[in-house]
Amino acid sequence: MKLYSASKAPSPRRVVMLLAEKSLLDQVEIVSLDLAAGDNLRDEFVQQNPMAKVPMLALSSGECLSEAGAINRYLDQCYPEPNLCGVSPLEQAHIDMWDRHVEIGLLYPVGMAFQHGSGFFKDRMTPVPAWGQECARSAVAFLQVLEQQLARHAYVAGERFTVADITALCALDFAKVIQVRIDDRHPSIQRWYAECQARPSYAASWQ
Amino acid sequence: MKLYSASKAPSPRRVVMLLAEKSLLDQVEIVSLDLAAGDNLRDEFVQQNPMAKVPMLALSSGECLSEAGAINRYLDQCYPEPNLCGVSPLEQAHIDMWDRHVEIGLLYPVGMAFQHGSGFFKDRMTPVPAWGQECARSAVAFLQVLEQQLARHAYVAGERFTVADITALCALDFAKVIQVRIDDRHPSIQRWYAECQARPSYAASWQ
Repeated sequence: MKLYSASKAPSPRRVVMLLAEKSLLDQVEIVSLDLAAGDNLRDEFVQQNPMAKVPMLALSSGECLSEAGAINRYLDQCYPEPNLCGVSPLEQAHIDMWDRHVEIGLLYPVGMAFQHGSGFFKDRMTPVPAWGQECARSAVAFLQVLEQQLARHAYVAGERFTVADITALCALDFAKVIQVRIDDRHPSIQRWYAECQARPSYAASWQ
Repeated sequence: MKLYSASKAPSPRRVVMLLAEKSLLDQVEIVSLDLAAGDNLRDEFVQQNPMAKVPMLALSSGECLSEAGAINRYLDQCYPEPNLCGVSPLEQAHIDMWDRHVEIGLLYPVGMAFQHGSGFFKDRMTPVPAWGQECARSAVAFLQVLEQQLARHAYVAGERFTVADITALCALDFAKVIQVRIDDRHPSIQRWYAECQARPSYAASWQ
């Protein structure tokens, strides 16, 4: 398998961290694209992924999968230990629900705040700084939702580490680039973050 | 089961259409919330869904699931006929990938264009009209991606009807409120749309 990724980008890091949790990193060739240079906009990449985004996983069959959430569930089914997406339908739904809460409440707003605040991709999109500021505010507001959840539960989707924790870790780390950080108002997030940071997959995911 | 929905809102309609495909509509009580009046912001709802969004599915156990994508996969596992989310891990991943392409490329931009252009929720968010205009433009651009896909395949995620078609139908119908419509540039989308519109689930989903 070949994973198309990009240094420091939070979405491909979700897949890298899942691969690390499953001790699969040495079975995957990681190809790091230069997004600023537009590697992801070249014809040969867009033909495989019309959304022109990383991550993209190229299987040995030649088929290419994109969208981090879809890739991670696929890998969790193919390589079931340790389980990260749930076992029963209800547990899977609960984990998927929280993974999407974190995507919509934190990961996307943080990404928008970065793109619209920095103009990093202004060669290919029109930055709207006022929207970037709104997104930064909504990301900060979501931290209260996450704090309440982690005050009641050990992990984002319940009592064990799952893909929802991976998404939250990648989003929180990327939030530093827009100056959004957890602080004394978030003691439960701090407790959880310290525990997750101690996992070997955390360091291994900085590819 | 009880489904918290809202008239004309595209995300809960995704769940209603899936229930109709599975002939399950008569087993679910649909509770229509008045979003303009803030029914979804009331304490008793937010306690069950901290994102304060519809759809939300309340199970007979009392557990509540939110996020349309998570709810639909849960229902597809519990009520497997007809299958709408894929069978093999690879087919599931392919369908999930396209479902997310449509969410990110069409459904969310259309929703943003509506919210930021109309100020419909200005009592609870700050509309950024320039962002709404960008979103309308990106929704139009995504129609080219969808047109190319439907020129090569009978349905959005391949050769049969799946949740990715449901998401695309709900997004396209809602796009009319921002004056984004398919036209002569989209012959393959028109062919697909006419076929999907003839399914009984299409009419049944206008609850």
